[in-house]
Amino acid sequence: MRESYILGVSMTRFGKYLERSLQDLAYDPIWTAIHESDVDPHDIDIAFVGNAYAGLITGQESVRGQVIMREAGITKIPIINVENACASGSTAFYLAHRAVASGQAELALAVGVEKLFCGDTRQSLKVLSTSSDLDIEGRMGILFAGIYAMRVQTHMKNHGLTREQLAMVAVKNHDHGALNPHAQYRDRVTVEEVLNSRMIADPITLLMTCPLGDGAAALLVGTKEMALRMGKRPIRIASSVLGSFDFTRKGEPTIACRVSKKAYDEAGVTPQHIQVAEVHDAVAPIELYLYEELGFCGQGESGRMIDRRETWFDGKLPVNTSGGLTAKGHPAGATGLAQVAEIVWQMRGEAEERQINPIPNVGLAENGGGNMGGETAVVAVHILRGH
Amino acid sequence: MRESYILGVSMTRFGKYLERSLQDLAYDPIWTAIHESDVDPHDIDIAFVGNAYAGLITGQESVRGQVIMREAGITKIPIINVENACASGSTAFYLAHRAVASGQAELALAVGVEKLFCGDTRQSLKVLSTSSDLDIEGRMGILFAGIYAMRVQTHMKNHGLTREQLAMVAVKNHDHGALNPHAQYRDRVTVEEVLNSRMIADPITLLMTCPLGDGAAALLVGTKEMALRMGKRPIRIASSVLGSFDFTRKGEPTIACRVSKKAYDEAGVTPQHIQVAEVHDAVAPIELYLYEELGFCGQGESGRMIDRRETWFDGKLPVNTSGGLTAKGHPAGATGLAQVAEIVWQMRGEAEERQINPIPNVGLAENGGGNMGGETAVVAVHILRGH
Repeated sequence: MRESYILGVSMTRFGKYLERSLQDLAYDPIWTAIHESDVDPHDIDIAFVGNAYAGLITGQESVRGQVIMREAGITKIPIINVENACASGSTAFYLAHRAVASGQAELALAVGVEKLFCGDTRQSLKVLSTSSDLDIEGRMGILFAGIYAMRVQTHMKNHGLTREQLAMVAVKNHDHGALNPHAQYRDRVTVEEVLNSRMIADPITLLMTCPLGDGAAALLVGTKEMALRMGKRPIRIASSVLGSFDFTRKGEPTIACRVSKKAYDEAGVTPQHIQVAEVHDAVAPIELYLYEELGFCGQGESGRMIDRRETWFDGKLPVNTSGGLTAKGHPAGATGLAQVAEIVWQMRGEAEERQINPIPNVGLAENGGGNMGGETAVVAVHILRGH
Repeated sequence: MRESYILGVSMTRFGKYLERSLQDLAYDPIWTAIHESDVDPHDIDIAFVGNAYAGLITGQESVRGQVIMREAGITKIPIINVENACASGSTAFYLAHRAVASGQAELALAVGVEKLFCGDTRQSLKVLSTSSDLDIEGRMGILFAGIYAMRVQTHMKNHGLTREQLAMVAVKNHDHGALNPHAQYRDRVTVEEVLNSRMIADPITLLMTCPLGDGAAALLVGTKEMALRMGKRPIRIASSVLGSFDFTRKGEPTIACRVSKKAYDEAGVTPQHIQVAEVHDAVAPIELYLYEELGFCGQGESGRMIDRRETWFDGKLPVNTSGGLTAKGHPAGATGLAQVAEIVWQMRGEAEERQINPIPNVGLAENGGGNMGGETAVVAVHILRGH
């Protein structure tokens, strides 16, 4: 396996784009990423296109990537449509990395795109429910907020997390979102506002949840030579690991723990090396659970971590400087690539108002998708290193 | 790139299984392929699951592969949902091959599964129409039969193909289907019956079209050592190429021509080396067009080829010994892997009543998917060699 590098990265602002098609949303990120990469688009060897729900929202199933690439004017090459619920974008990234790292491609395009907003929230929620097994969780009528609420309740009970600590994560991510021009929500909120907003699934309130929205992100993965030619700081993919749910028994490591351990091992780092992270805060409180699963702190210590503001963008280990899913938004198929984009921007010193100082050298993105029997169905962890 | 081999292969009989779920259909092929491979299922490194339309037929979108693998009891490993219209199964195969050939996996599982029959043919046809760009071809109301009819009409005009020759392909494939226990249609038909059956899109009649149906297929790709250990004839993947539509101008090579040329080059063979082939006869007459595109004969010579019965299972170059899509059936996501299964069985001498003699050493599978601007959106060509 040779080294693979991230070249150009780009994303739309996440938001509600009722009138825009998948292909229209993806066009700008694709071409901005190509131009930034300083490559000939004819040299792209393969494209992986991640999308989770278009078939059920727009009706376009089955050849979504081809429709997108036709609009972008990039044809002939293999186009692979991949789908892994909210980790679809990360799955495209994982395959693009593997294609280059194995030498099967010199230059691979990863695209993530989603339209979730359709003007009918009930329909959007129904579509999101297809990320569980419809014959099992579907029949229980259980949706993501409920699944997360159960996990957070258990964690509160085991580790004494307070509602204020849960709310503080939402405050932090909205603070970050206010600094990010790509974020869907750009208003700051207070702990009181978060706690007093409408209860969705106890203890999760409205301002702790991510918005419904649309958007696209794209990036190119290439060789070290290409990265050096760009004239920007080269960002190497130190590891990219994808894992699935298991029939996990109590006391066994969870999926996020298993997958991140493998990613640390492959990258040759420990959690202590991570200097910036984007994690899958589909509801803000789950971020605390992820601090522990990803080894950013010990079991039960995440509450203290947020109390000490360690994960604010000016803290010891900034998490979700983009605003995270909570504030930046979460158009499922685009999310994984948008997370990677934020880490790249931070590591290149291009994050403007939300830039971490000093510029980080090791970053991590964690993206989850779907639900199988109460466990996240898919987790992807990518570790990036600046050179 | 190292050599990669096909281990166990399995498929359901294709047919109408209104009461069976995706996961139920996939279970038997997955486990039969594992048992035949003589491997420990815990050694499977990665799974690629191809499906095109489940979200719109069963409602299960976004984590179809996870639902299938949960039922099969295979967890933890990366599960990648891939979708490329009627070439979804071939796309899973292509990625499984690349994972092993690059050394990223020792053992990769490819699964293809589809439910197309839902008791309402109009709904099934609507779902199939999502394999074109809905904003372009969709607005024209054009469906696959119409697209194929235009291509066949042009070919008839340019090369003087007769309606009898078109019908003869259907007769051949139904003859083969009658010999194949996995085929959905097992009745022989005559040229007169084919020509007198209901006109669907001139010159394509009902008995020239593939049935709506459901089914699943699975296979394992592994190393040479694993293939040798199985105690069956090792079947090597000499090449697996995936390509996309282009804005092709008159006189430029079509997608099937481009992709197959690359597959021949990578395998180090010419069309003259092919001794058995499965090709994408979604309507029987298109098989003649494919003989020419794949180089089995010169331009305009396919009519003579079928007149001389050269592609019958006892002919010079047997094509679609399984019955092809026309008679074996075409549950989209499963088709590409079922084609590969037939070639493997022929090359191992396991094709029973429809076995080619002598046993072939070089086989080809060609699988198409979707439509973009009148050209097939995706074509996959795999070349297999017996050792």
